[in-house]
Amino acid sequence: MTNVHIDTSHPYDVLIGPGLLDEAGALMKQAVGLCTAAIVTDSTVDRLYGDRLESSLRAAGYETVRTYFPAGEQHKRLGTLEAILEFLAERHLTRTDVIVALGGGVPGDVAGFAAAVYARGIRFVQVPTTLLAAVDSSVGGKTAVDLAAGKNLAGAFHQPSLVITDTDIMRDLPEALLADGAAEIIKYGVLSDPEMFEWMRNEGWKTKLDEIISRSVQIKRDFVNRDEFDTGLRQQLNLGHTFGHAIEKCSGFRLSHGQSVAIGTAIAAGAAGLEEMVGAILDANRACGLPVDVPYDATTLAASAMNDKKRKGASITLVLPERIGLCRLETIDISLLEDAFTRGIAMVEAAR
Amino acid sequence: MTNVHIDTSHPYDVLIGPGLLDEAGALMKQAVGLCTAAIVTDSTVDRLYGDRLESSLRAAGYETVRTYFPAGEQHKRLGTLEAILEFLAERHLTRTDVIVALGGGVPGDVAGFAAAVYARGIRFVQVPTTLLAAVDSSVGGKTAVDLAAGKNLAGAFHQPSLVITDTDIMRDLPEALLADGAAEIIKYGVLSDPEMFEWMRNEGWKTKLDEIISRSVQIKRDFVNRDEFDTGLRQQLNLGHTFGHAIEKCSGFRLSHGQSVAIGTAIAAGAAGLEEMVGAILDANRACGLPVDVPYDATTLAASAMNDKKRKGASITLVLPERIGLCRLETIDISLLEDAFTRGIAMVEAAR
Repeated sequence: MTNVHIDTSHPYDVLIGPGLLDEAGALMKQAVGLCTAAIVTDSTVDRLYGDRLESSLRAAGYETVRTYFPAGEQHKRLGTLEAILEFLAERHLTRTDVIVALGGGVPGDVAGFAAAVYARGIRFVQVPTTLLAAVDSSVGGKTAVDLAAGKNLAGAFHQPSLVITDTDIMRDLPEALLADGAAEIIKYGVLSDPEMFEWMRNEGWKTKLDEIISRSVQIKRDFVNRDEFDTGLRQQLNLGHTFGHAIEKCSGFRLSHGQSVAIGTAIAAGAAGLEEMVGAILDANRACGLPVDVPYDATTLAASAMNDKKRKGASITLVLPERIGLCRLETIDISLLEDAFTRGIAMVEAAR
Repeated sequence: MTNVHIDTSHPYDVLIGPGLLDEAGALMKQAVGLCTAAIVTDSTVDRLYGDRLESSLRAAGYETVRTYFPAGEQHKRLGTLEAILEFLAERHLTRTDVIVALGGGVPGDVAGFAAAVYARGIRFVQVPTTLLAAVDSSVGGKTAVDLAAGKNLAGAFHQPSLVITDTDIMRDLPEALLADGAAEIIKYGVLSDPEMFEWMRNEGWKTKLDEIISRSVQIKRDFVNRDEFDTGLRQQLNLGHTFGHAIEKCSGFRLSHGQSVAIGTAIAAGAAGLEEMVGAILDANRACGLPVDVPYDATTLAASAMNDKKRKGASITLVLPERIGLCRLETIDISLLEDAFTRGIAMVEAAR
């Protein structure tokens, strides 16, 4: 088991290793003490792992309650949050109790947000069940739901008290869910780990999964530690995301977050004029079962990106690679965004 | 103009004085700088003060947008929050913009909560238009909406960037709204200001309104500064509230928060066995147009209080006076709560 310590305003540990789901109760007991634990998850994950998690918590001495909402990004909304909050209130959860967010990004974000606002904030533990959640959304304290006007527009910064990542769950994932996580891992490689980036260009990356998850969490940790409230440096974690979110939105969310970010990262390298790197990123995408083509034109994507909440007034901040392992922030006038898309897409098309 | 500085994790000033509504733009410009200001209020307050506030902001150079929701505690719900958040997103508010919460406790709590969660937190300015909001809810950073299961069960700690209290607005208030605020002022007197408590026993208290508001805000400030996240000392500010909330709930919210707290404060003195103080509090209630009788029995009220979120497992923390100007916290077993109600109510009935 690897322990990655996150030193934010409320410090916590990310525990990574095989078989941890069945040890969750004992691990939680050390970190948060005994109390009532409310397991919050979605319908799919509840069926797969709900009973095992609840048994582990009960065996450790927790009183448990459990609720789930229908699986799917379309349920990452305030209505779902409300149902969870009413459930917690009906079960008389108090400020000293804990929510256990079991699942991928959607249950993690929604249950984390519920923990942030229930009784003005109670503790929560993340138990990610997708690779994307394990390497990205379960670390850093960002919680949110979507609005009609856009993704993640309502939320809170709320750090978990503990993250428990069972790597056996990761190894059992279907290919599509593995690929979604791989997109963020490729991003971390481009941001600051050339060795790990090379691993991802090789089909055999799955054999190194424990090490890759730990390294990814450490990279995210290093950015988050230096900028908890996302006012500067942490924006680098958005590499591929401004371009990727636009693709995701244009596809009506048929393309997944990971698929969209994978292409977005290649476009970012292209927008930075780095021909060789675009080729390397496309290689990594192929090795991980991620797409290598851009399904929309620059004008359409730029218009969609205009609503991105990262936009400050008339400008927008892009994350642009300099070399594998180093990126920079560049704030450009919003009118230049379409040019960046055009340059990036042209280079991706040429390298394909 | 009095300036009460609040030294929480995000420090801010509470400006108190006559005529400040029309100076709001200039005062805000100093504290938060120019940006887009989204005025959020309710239908009643919008009609009374919306145009004056918006004119003042525009004259100072702000771009403004404005929205209101139907007046009334029944609209302090997640549905209203959602409508406000969608409004802000449609108007493209960014993290560097500001919400101006104009109104009494309900608009303040809802708009403050919207500021806490929109894009994971943007700045907000409170412009209270009721005495209760001026002396209580606009200071301290507690924001919330109600759930079906209870009041204020979903919310966030989010400090305003500035509070602007126009005391001319307070002087124009109808008697019922003045009385609501007076209940909290009597509470502050019992907590730590014997001189102000004496003023409140006298019909002429309204002539000292500016001084009373400043003192009340300072008292609240002193408790909040020492315990921003409400884990200990700050609980004293709940004096009269455990008893009062039960009355408010049993009345189906026909009795106002202030009316309920006024009686609750007298019950607290009674539960502490302080006969003379109960009489003094009832005198103050009479002088301020607040009720002096308890409309429900101890069994009914204790059952209603059991759902209070301040309850920790099997115990509940009461705020009990020792003398005018000094109170203490006492945590009792939940099974003893009905006894406390019985003792308190008996003494209020006897002193009436």
